[in-house]
Amino acid sequence: MLDRNWFTELCEEAGSAFSLKIRGKLHEEQTPFQKIEIYETTDFGNLMVIDGFIMLSSRDNFLYHEMMSHPVLFTHPAPKRVLIVGGGDCGTLREVLRHPDVECVEQVDIDERVTRLSEIHFPELCEANDDPRARLHFADGIQWVADAPDDSLDVIIVDSTDPIGPGEVLFTEDFYRHCRRALGENGLLVQQSESPVYHLDLLTDMHRKMRRAGFARTQILNFPQPVYPSGWWSATLAGNGELSAFRVRDVEARPFPTRYYNQRIHEAALAVPEFVERHLREALS
Amino acid sequence: MLDRNWFTELCEEAGSAFSLKIRGKLHEEQTPFQKIEIYETTDFGNLMVIDGFIMLSSRDNFLYHEMMSHPVLFTHPAPKRVLIVGGGDCGTLREVLRHPDVECVEQVDIDERVTRLSEIHFPELCEANDDPRARLHFADGIQWVADAPDDSLDVIIVDSTDPIGPGEVLFTEDFYRHCRRALGENGLLVQQSESPVYHLDLLTDMHRKMRRAGFARTQILNFPQPVYPSGWWSATLAGNGELSAFRVRDVEARPFPTRYYNQRIHEAALAVPEFVERHLREALS
Repeated sequence: MLDRNWFTELCEEAGSAFSLKIRGKLHEEQTPFQKIEIYETTDFGNLMVIDGFIMLSSRDNFLYHEMMSHPVLFTHPAPKRVLIVGGGDCGTLREVLRHPDVECVEQVDIDERVTRLSEIHFPELCEANDDPRARLHFADGIQWVADAPDDSLDVIIVDSTDPIGPGEVLFTEDFYRHCRRALGENGLLVQQSESPVYHLDLLTDMHRKMRRAGFARTQILNFPQPVYPSGWWSATLAGNGELSAFRVRDVEARPFPTRYYNQRIHEAALAVPEFVERHLREALS
Repeated sequence: MLDRNWFTELCEEAGSAFSLKIRGKLHEEQTPFQKIEIYETTDFGNLMVIDGFIMLSSRDNFLYHEMMSHPVLFTHPAPKRVLIVGGGDCGTLREVLRHPDVECVEQVDIDERVTRLSEIHFPELCEANDDPRARLHFADGIQWVADAPDDSLDVIIVDSTDPIGPGEVLFTEDFYRHCRRALGENGLLVQQSESPVYHLDLLTDMHRKMRRAGFARTQILNFPQPVYPSGWWSATLAGNGELSAFRVRDVEARPFPTRYYNQRIHEAALAVPEFVERHLREALS
């Protein structure tokens, strides 16, 4: 039924698979870190795949990129210094730079090829790369955070691959402890945290590790993402203050367009389903 | 990659496909109305497929069934008389019957075989079928609503297949006009309304037809549904009063368990993303 005109991603742990119809493969290369493929699809625009896993499509990446940036930035009272770990496609970077109060964004992705290929195949995501507030580094994000001075950042966004392969070290208590130190008392961390319906143990484990690393509170953010397993994805916020309150007036008066995010969607993302709530409560007690 | 051990549903209009790994086919039959298949999957329990489209799985049907019943019933001030059009698997019926104030639920599905097969392969969904408040009819839902006396129902739940095939007539202005008449001034209609990201035109068209048929207000309800196209599904509420207010205290004090639904999830479901809001505003103006 699905012939060579389809790209299929298997999700072994859920016995499911998601496929997109393709017109052809635009690029394939093995970098020192991973295998990157770019496809042209029939209905989702271009598609980036890393080590067999879908990273993003032109059509629906706005959901992920808006939800990885706006909720955390509108939760922090005055975010000026932002670090993005991963994020090589630059879609999150573009959204972060829409916030006029942000003064400096350092982005640290280990693989420069992700960014170079995004410039070619997802140019709309890279349109803010020349913003003077942005600095792109191609280096080890773990080391970067370990080297960051105490209390030197307001927001850290971990926009990485899944916790298998090179992204694995970004889901450890040790990494979160370095984040906590670099953020100081008032900083906020946000990280993509997989599917609440497929990866609930992983999500719970992240919350536990973040709290052990010194963050007083953690909060799940839910959003739809058709090209990721189950179509239901999440990010997890960590910080010491109230994580469900945000700058509502600034959201309403935001001087930039969004396609998914707004005040009601921010509140909606904070809602925790019964089964997730129970699982988190048991795991964190 | 996906061999005979997988069931795949194609979503032609989005150039996407979703697959589940199966252990085997438990049943297949052609009824006078449709072809029904039942599979045993590796990770999603049993799976019901009608005319090639996934209807439900044991694992994730709780999302759909809770969201098709609890929001509408907690929005109505005192729902006593409920009609379910379709709903042959009986999962929605079970959730409706959890509300102690409901006095009578008529369920009208055209195909008795859906219910008989659900009793065998999804017995947990049928555990309330013997409730004395429930009456199961196997008949034409359109005709049933056309024959219903004026102002004779508090809530109509349209839990049908997609608007292609036998379900098509349930997405027409004529049908909604009969619903409006049978519901009277204070009744509420809710209907599954496909994926906001794949079927936005259809969703908008439903809102337009419901309003033309005499409902003063319409409101989308969003929820995740991994086995449906895009993983992001919706229902649409129609009525004459405020559709975003609901009996919050009764939700908090509900005398039954839920796995997804709670007060925060109800509020979250009402949040309308920017692109959906814009599309609806333009279409309904």
